[in-house]
Amino acid sequence: MMGRTYEGLNCSAARALEVVGERWSLVIIREAIFSRVTRFNDFQRRLGVASNILKNRLDNFVAAGLMEPRPYSQSERTHEYVLTDKGRDLRPVLVALTGWGDRWVAPEGPPVIYTHSECGGDITQVSQCTKCQEEHRDLDIVTRPGPGATR
Amino acid sequence: MMGRTYEGLNCSAARALEVVGERWSLVIIREAIFSRVTRFNDFQRRLGVASNILKNRLDNFVAAGLMEPRPYSQSERTHEYVLTDKGRDLRPVLVALTGWGDRWVAPEGPPVIYTHSECGGDITQVSQCTKCQEEHRDLDIVTRPGPGATR
Repeated sequence: MMGRTYEGLNCSAARALEVVGERWSLVIIREAIFSRVTRFNDFQRRLGVASNILKNRLDNFVAAGLMEPRPYSQSERTHEYVLTDKGRDLRPVLVALTGWGDRWVAPEGPPVIYTHSECGGDITQVSQCTKCQEEHRDLDIVTRPGPGATR
Repeated sequence: MMGRTYEGLNCSAARALEVVGERWSLVIIREAIFSRVTRFNDFQRRLGVASNILKNRLDNFVAAGLMEPRPYSQSERTHEYVLTDKGRDLRPVLVALTGWGDRWVAPEGPPVIYTHSECGGDITQVSQCTKCQEEHRDLDIVTRPGPGATR
């Protein structure tokens, strides 16, 4: 399933993009996470994406373990696409991407506001230091090699 | 400059993907942000990306205001690509994407660990409610229309 665009790179961002970096992929995942869309026709109607592309993306999501097919109604030939934990865990990526879009390419203001379900407050996303607990959207970050650095 | 893949969608994530959703785009931005790469040859050597693709992406970043060309050395024909605030602000997107990759597609562990420059602690990313201050990577989020909802 994993693509080969970034084959030589030992980088988790690149590996993530092998799974969700194709056109439409993250937009489809967004509909699934935030609008709880599960059916082929609903994805297509809401997004206007071509059937063959949508089919390819959903099949790839199933192969990559982001979604699971689940039969619905009487027909065994019809199924919906239900997010797995792995798929749902892309939420922070979409919150971050939306935040950037809101700040830089939404001159009329955010089309959608992410809201805390329990209290109705607006959601923001911050980087947090697990040692000194400082947190900030723009915390100064450097990199160091991790356990998977050499392979 | 803005592409047309998601033209009918009033969605900040889709608009962000028009700018950085093409193959290689976010990986190039990642090198610029975290490894402070600025020169064409350095991007190419580190990533192994084809010259024509790299040239296209860097030109698009300049057109979109993510990078600025800056002459270096004696040659006026040679310039490097320097991130703007708009480009640097993609950092949370890359931290989120890397976090997902670390959790789900890095069986040998993270290749790279994001580290707080001031204290050396590991960085994590959380969603924070601006009202009740609750914070969690997986805070339960719903959506509501924002000021840019109708256009």
